[in-house]
Amino acid sequence: MKNKKYVYLFAEGSKDMRNLLGGKGANLAEMTNIGLPVPPGLTITTEACIDYFELGKKLPESLEADLWDKLETVEEATGKKFGDNSNPLLVSVRSGAVASMPGMMDTILNLGLNDETVEGLAKSVNDPRFAYDCYRRFIQMFSDVVMEVEHYEFETILAKQKDTAGVKNDNELSAEDLQNIIKEYKVLVKRSAGKEFPQNPTEQLIMAVQAVFDSWYNPRADYYRKINNISDALGTAVNVQSMVFGNMGAKSGTGVAFTRNPANGENKLYGEYLMNAQGEDVVAGIRTPNPITNLQEDSPVVYDQFVKIANLLENHYRDMQDIEFTIENEKLYMLQTRTGKRTTAAAIRIAAEMVDEKLITKEEALLRIEPTQLDQLLHRSIDPNAELIVIAKGLPASPGAGSGRIVFNADDAENLGKEGKDTILVRLETTPDDIHGVVYSRGILTSRGGMTSHAAVVARGIGKPCVCGCEALEIDVVNEKLVVGKHQFKKGDIISIDGTTGNIILGQVPMIDPELSPSFQRILTWADEIKTLSVRANADSPEEAKKAREFGAQGIGLCRTEHMFMDQARLPIVQEMILSETIEEREKSLRKLLSFQQEDFYGILKAMEGLPVTVRLLDPPLHEFLPNAESLLVDITKLKCSDGDAELLEEKEELLKKVKALSENNPMLGHRGCRLGITYPEIYRMQARAIFQATAQLEKEGYNIIPEVEVPLIIGPDELRLLKAEIDEVAVAVREETGVDFDYHVGTMIELPRACLTADEIAEYAEFFTFGTNDLTQTVLGFSRDDSEGKFMQEYLDYKIIEHNPFIVLDQKGVGKLLKYAVKNAREVKPNLPIGICGEHAGEPSSIEFSHVIGLDFVSCSPFRVPIARLAAAQAAVNNNNQSK
Amino acid sequence: MKNKKYVYLFAEGSKDMRNLLGGKGANLAEMTNIGLPVPPGLTITTEACIDYFELGKKLPESLEADLWDKLETVEEATGKKFGDNSNPLLVSVRSGAVASMPGMMDTILNLGLNDETVEGLAKSVNDPRFAYDCYRRFIQMFSDVVMEVEHYEFETILAKQKDTAGVKNDNELSAEDLQNIIKEYKVLVKRSAGKEFPQNPTEQLIMAVQAVFDSWYNPRADYYRKINNISDALGTAVNVQSMVFGNMGAKSGTGVAFTRNPANGENKLYGEYLMNAQGEDVVAGIRTPNPITNLQEDSPVVYDQFVKIANLLENHYRDMQDIEFTIENEKLYMLQTRTGKRTTAAAIRIAAEMVDEKLITKEEALLRIEPTQLDQLLHRSIDPNAELIVIAKGLPASPGAGSGRIVFNADDAENLGKEGKDTILVRLETTPDDIHGVVYSRGILTSRGGMTSHAAVVARGIGKPCVCGCEALEIDVVNEKLVVGKHQFKKGDIISIDGTTGNIILGQVPMIDPELSPSFQRILTWADEIKTLSVRANADSPEEAKKAREFGAQGIGLCRTEHMFMDQARLPIVQEMILSETIEEREKSLRKLLSFQQEDFYGILKAMEGLPVTVRLLDPPLHEFLPNAESLLVDITKLKCSDGDAELLEEKEELLKKVKALSENNPMLGHRGCRLGITYPEIYRMQARAIFQATAQLEKEGYNIIPEVEVPLIIGPDELRLLKAEIDEVAVAVREETGVDFDYHVGTMIELPRACLTADEIAEYAEFFTFGTNDLTQTVLGFSRDDSEGKFMQEYLDYKIIEHNPFIVLDQKGVGKLLKYAVKNAREVKPNLPIGICGEHAGEPSSIEFSHVIGLDFVSCSPFRVPIARLAAAQAAVNNNNQSK
Repeated sequence: MKNKKYVYLFAEGSKDMRNLLGGKGANLAEMTNIGLPVPPGLTITTEACIDYFELGKKLPESLEADLWDKLETVEEATGKKFGDNSNPLLVSVRSGAVASMPGMMDTILNLGLNDETVEGLAKSVNDPRFAYDCYRRFIQMFSDVVMEVEHYEFETILAKQKDTAGVKNDNELSAEDLQNIIKEYKVLVKRSAGKEFPQNPTEQLIMAVQAVFDSWYNPRADYYRKINNISDALGTAVNVQSMVFGNMGAKSGTGVAFTRNPANGENKLYGEYLMNAQGEDVVAGIRTPNPITNLQEDSPVVYDQFVKIANLLENHYRDMQDIEFTIENEKLYMLQTRTGKRTTAAAIRIAAEMVDEKLITKEEALLRIEPTQLDQLLHRSIDPNAELIVIAKGLPASPGAGSGRIVFNADDAENLGKEGKDTILVRLETTPDDIHGVVYSRGILTSRGGMTSHAAVVARGIGKPCVCGCEALEIDVVNEKLVVGKHQFKKGDIISIDGTTGNIILGQVPMIDPELSPSFQRILTWADEIKTLSVRANADSPEEAKKAREFGAQGIGLCRTEHMFMDQARLPIVQEMILSETIEEREKSLRKLLSFQQEDFYGILKAMEGLPVTVRLLDPPLHEFLPNAESLLVDITKLKCSDGDAELLEEKEELLKKVKALSENNPMLGHRGCRLGITYPEIYRMQARAIFQATAQLEKEGYNIIPEVEVPLIIGPDELRLLKAEIDEVAVAVREETGVDFDYHVGTMIELPRACLTADEIAEYAEFFTFGTNDLTQTVLGFSRDDSEGKFMQEYLDYKIIEHNPFIVLDQKGVGKLLKYAVKNAREVKPNLPIGICGEHAGEPSSIEFSHVIGLDFVSCSPFRVPIARLAAAQAAVNNNNQSK
Repeated sequence: MKNKKYVYLFAEGSKDMRNLLGGKGANLAEMTNIGLPVPPGLTITTEACIDYFELGKKLPESLEADLWDKLETVEEATGKKFGDNSNPLLVSVRSGAVASMPGMMDTILNLGLNDETVEGLAKSVNDPRFAYDCYRRFIQMFSDVVMEVEHYEFETILAKQKDTAGVKNDNELSAEDLQNIIKEYKVLVKRSAGKEFPQNPTEQLIMAVQAVFDSWYNPRADYYRKINNISDALGTAVNVQSMVFGNMGAKSGTGVAFTRNPANGENKLYGEYLMNAQGEDVVAGIRTPNPITNLQEDSPVVYDQFVKIANLLENHYRDMQDIEFTIENEKLYMLQTRTGKRTTAAAIRIAAEMVDEKLITKEEALLRIEPTQLDQLLHRSIDPNAELIVIAKGLPASPGAGSGRIVFNADDAENLGKEGKDTILVRLETTPDDIHGVVYSRGILTSRGGMTSHAAVVARGIGKPCVCGCEALEIDVVNEKLVVGKHQFKKGDIISIDGTTGNIILGQVPMIDPELSPSFQRILTWADEIKTLSVRANADSPEEAKKAREFGAQGIGLCRTEHMFMDQARLPIVQEMILSETIEEREKSLRKLLSFQQEDFYGILKAMEGLPVTVRLLDPPLHEFLPNAESLLVDITKLKCSDGDAELLEEKEELLKKVKALSENNPMLGHRGCRLGITYPEIYRMQARAIFQATAQLEKEGYNIIPEVEVPLIIGPDELRLLKAEIDEVAVAVREETGVDFDYHVGTMIELPRACLTADEIAEYAEFFTFGTNDLTQTVLGFSRDDSEGKFMQEYLDYKIIEHNPFIVLDQKGVGKLLKYAVKNAREVKPNLPIGICGEHAGEPSSIEFSHVIGLDFVSCSPFRVPIARLAAAQAAVNNNNQSK
């Protein structure tokens, strides 16, 4: 740790030295060097902080010498001397991490004051009241931050003195009042901290620097870093800057401003200021600050200067800036500039307008928007001005908000929904049986299941709000009662849920509709110009297909056929088909299903006319369509106990036998996917026929239809080879029967490790691949999606065994390696093979970037995530072009 | 297909041309060239067969010309002419594939005879009776094989003529009788085949050649190839050889002989012959053949010559030969030699003795024995002379045989077993709960589950006979009744099972004990000298450990701790531990388990003193130790129906709640393995303590103990890193407490794809790896081991989607690629990392060879497979040294 330069004057830095100087320090240096009026100062580096902790909370040896050395330069620049009794240099001490961490540590102002220097200050500015005000503020801040004396105790003393003096505002206190306060403050410090308030400015500064370093690991900072994924190893810098005083009378002041409106993005200076105040007064809310435009009247010269500087900074940084300034006796000083935080709506507008202003390129504009935040703009949300009674909180599983009558089963949701009534479907957890209830409700609330549970996945797919895994709910399905803490609800009571926050709210709440601004549309148009990945949607119904198209989907990458089997009208036929004893019986049921399926595909294919639609053949194990074994068992036991209807008993026992014969220990690894197609080829033949008949019908009607038939869950080339032959045979027959010479493709889902490992062989028979990363994640990690959450996932995240929930963010280290391997080997055999990804990951930005990097052709996500995916795909293209330049 | 040489004279071939000439052709050529008396002939190549099918069952153009050309040379050599009326050349036509396919096609003898040449033959040998006998045989064979006239119809005519003539044997028929028969045969052919028997010898030969080719795809051949894994693409050759006649009177004859005894391996000529007979008479069983040694009296010169030739052939081929010969008028002709099939016991003795005779090397001796067949020598078996009433057949899941009283639950098996009574445990399927029953029974019989079901795996592990998945069983567990077809059994009735064949046999059957011959021991000693893979055993108890050591295991590669938890005395404590609400409660139960576990490990470690013992920490999901949810549900429903004991009801409901909370949709991918260790570190700490305390205790007693602690089911380096730290901490504590400075290693099981993909990172923390290929197979293929058999496995095998059951033979294309990847990457980080394999595959020869090839250090299989693995490992070493030379 020798020979390191631990301290930089502002003049020695630049905005590119962020890692060493922290964000604040780098920007202060930058402003200094472009000639803006910045009070002189210095920055102690993040390296010093890292070394401080390595040394067991000791300042590195050379640091102090460096510090005093550089402080001398500051003294020279200001003409004042630190600790000097006649013309003392006062400094502010602020932390400044690499990434902005607002509120990590409070600022200390006016450091350098003590019982003697305060008199020097009073004389030098000829204003004792001001000097004592500075001193009492300093004692208060320093003791709070460095010596851990509670803030409110100071406030109590202050309030008492105001009472005694009979004044309302701080600035009405006289010099004597303030001297009294200082005395009492010092007594308080001694009592509370167990030692005197330090009088030695050198000691004050060293204590303050250490306190800033220590604050790096305070709980607030720890938490902030954790939720924002900031590494502990970065450390914080410390900025020591000569004080300028906004509290030096009516011609002084302080304020903060954004170069554009951070709420809606309007290109207009936005901010507020207070005259005769120090920084913390603006935020403290004791006096109400004025809008920044009023400064034009209060101090026109300063205002003009400030506007010019704000423009200069925005142009210099090429982004909206968040600026702090102080006016000392009509002289403007810049204390901070940084890229301003903004709402998503503002981010979109600012980015779009900056392109118009030729300040940034379209590519840069695209990078300025966080794709996942687009979500808030795509769903109904609760009026931000509404007062809410939040009674519980679950997992925010599908964004948007909804209010409605509580129902406890899907049928009620459907019936009331059809009557035009709003419902919230409340369930322990949902199963595929509940799908019609999800469709007809305004929102779904469950007490079990995680972000990737069935309810969550289905809800996100169709854009319904959903709150999952809310353990505070006590649901009595039988008696249709819901208890949440002290609140009791029955069927029909009104409740609201917010799927964006996870909140459960009493009664009806006012909603606002989503608005898709013109800027948003423009940004997405640019995204489409730049991205190379095609974005498709997962859609299982004409309604979803239409929604997907509206959001800009370039096709359907995954149309699941099992949801169609769940429809109330069809389930009995599906069950009849499954329970068939002979192939003849089964084919009879399949003939009935054929017309339903043809109808389904007709609607979906028509909605996506001109775009490819990938239909996955039946995938889930058949027992998912049958009644639950446990409820049958209970029925049977009851019938036996009560000597019930013998015929019914026999029937139920027979059914149970069949359900059990089909049941599996690990259905995820069982008789499903193309294994059904291999053992019951007639099922896949029926589905292929339904697709082709719908296609032929539409082509006859003049539509251009591009069906893609997908075989799921293969382990190698042979299942695809065999089933493709069956599908081709059906196509030949339908072409002959209809006289329509339609086109189609046959491809496969790569969703098992072995399929990745034999992708080269599979590529020979496939006309396209889509990666099913949900199932791949399950098998590569050995994580059952239904089981891992609530069992060990949290511990795995806490111990950092995994960085993210692998069902949300693609596991690049495991699953990703297999994807790369498969793409490389498949493309060696068939260089132009279209390859996509269609798991939950296809709507998650980092996973989309990975898809881009490994050379996929498309991603396919739920309709409501299509805009997010379009933006993320464009960002991936921009980021990776930059890298290759 | 031009310019190919389709026909080879015997003199043009050699034994190395097997692929082109087939086995029989190549050996006839070889014998010709080493100067043995082989009747001249030619071979039509396998290429001709392949081209024949490519041309749509047409003989390639140049083939016929080639054939007549080479046939002329044969004519010259024999001094006879094909189709000549005075001195006709007769030929035999036989198929000869690359791999021996006995019985694929019948032989045609005496081809070339017709109404005219038969007279020429009669004159040339001056024996009309002989000539007509040849002709009637020829018509019979040719019409059967080439013209599809049913064999029995000829036999009927023959029998009728014998009746008419009043004789008993064929050779008593006169020339006139035979002429009558020939007439009737010709009428039969015309009627049955719809055309005349062909008189033109050229036509006869072409028809015969085509019939041989066609026979390649007859159902018998298809089936034989399928079960023996022979490729359809190989085709068959055709051998056309000049006839010599064993039926030319009392000085002629024919026979077959083995150069050693194929049943027990004794080095003594073994075979039989018949005088005045043609080849088929020996096998047909009409006359009883004489033992070969009698030939010494019948024809001493020929016998001596034969013995010399037999020795010469054995020395030439350096293996026991299976020889066919014919004597024509005291002249010996060799018609075939091939490597003789033999029993495993014979194979072992022959191989060992040939090494002593310096005929072959030890390496060659090792390659002569099929490892999987050693199994029959290691288990008790049914006396081959016993008469059995087989009442059903299941899957031969664990070899050996057993008889005993039927019991329907594990407790009865244990109780009767302790009284010294033999039982057969009959179950629908077994669960880990049944383990004590398996241990105390003589055999296990289940109606469900496949070769890799729980029952099968456990039974193989401890060497108990087991027949699984016998669907013919109707088991009524409640009433303790078993129905098999028309047979009814109750508890206590005697039954036998044969786990080698899958047979279920009525009553008690006589058994023979396994014999480990000295030759066997010597072969295994040689295997140990040559193999580089170490062979360990999977063993969970001191008994198994002892057995493993007896069979030559070099350590324990997998000691599962869950079976120890299942013991009746411990299960209640385990359940108490699982159901604990607090960590204190759990630790209390764990303290009770500690002494049990220490005792277990003490026994196992002591049995394996001086050898490494890998103990896998608890692996299965906890709910496997709890009562079944369904039976609880039934109990609860019953209690509710009958207004039963309210307290009991509440208790059961509480228990059901907990069982359900722990239950999982896909337990294989759930909360198990090190996920338990991460969420309940106290369980793994207890187990580590038990291992270390046992180690310390044994070291104190003077034993040299090498414990290896294994963390299962990791997905990356971090679980191992975290848990190794815990284990190391326990070791430090136990060393301190006991004052014993024992050694140990901590490693991990690589059994998930992600662990393979991050093996390099894992290697940093691991002191050894073992591949858990059972679980890897489940995840890589997405096959649940418990579910895939009986659902779709058979179809997958039938359609050749998979070549073998991947739970028996390691899937090299999928799982194998991941193993290679992991070994390569781990060794780059830690070149000397010991890596082994411990799934079911570790006892399967092709998987062992793969393990050798990818550079593993050890395999670990069930104790009874250790000899097999030792031999297979030696074969792998020999095969792969040869390859690299």
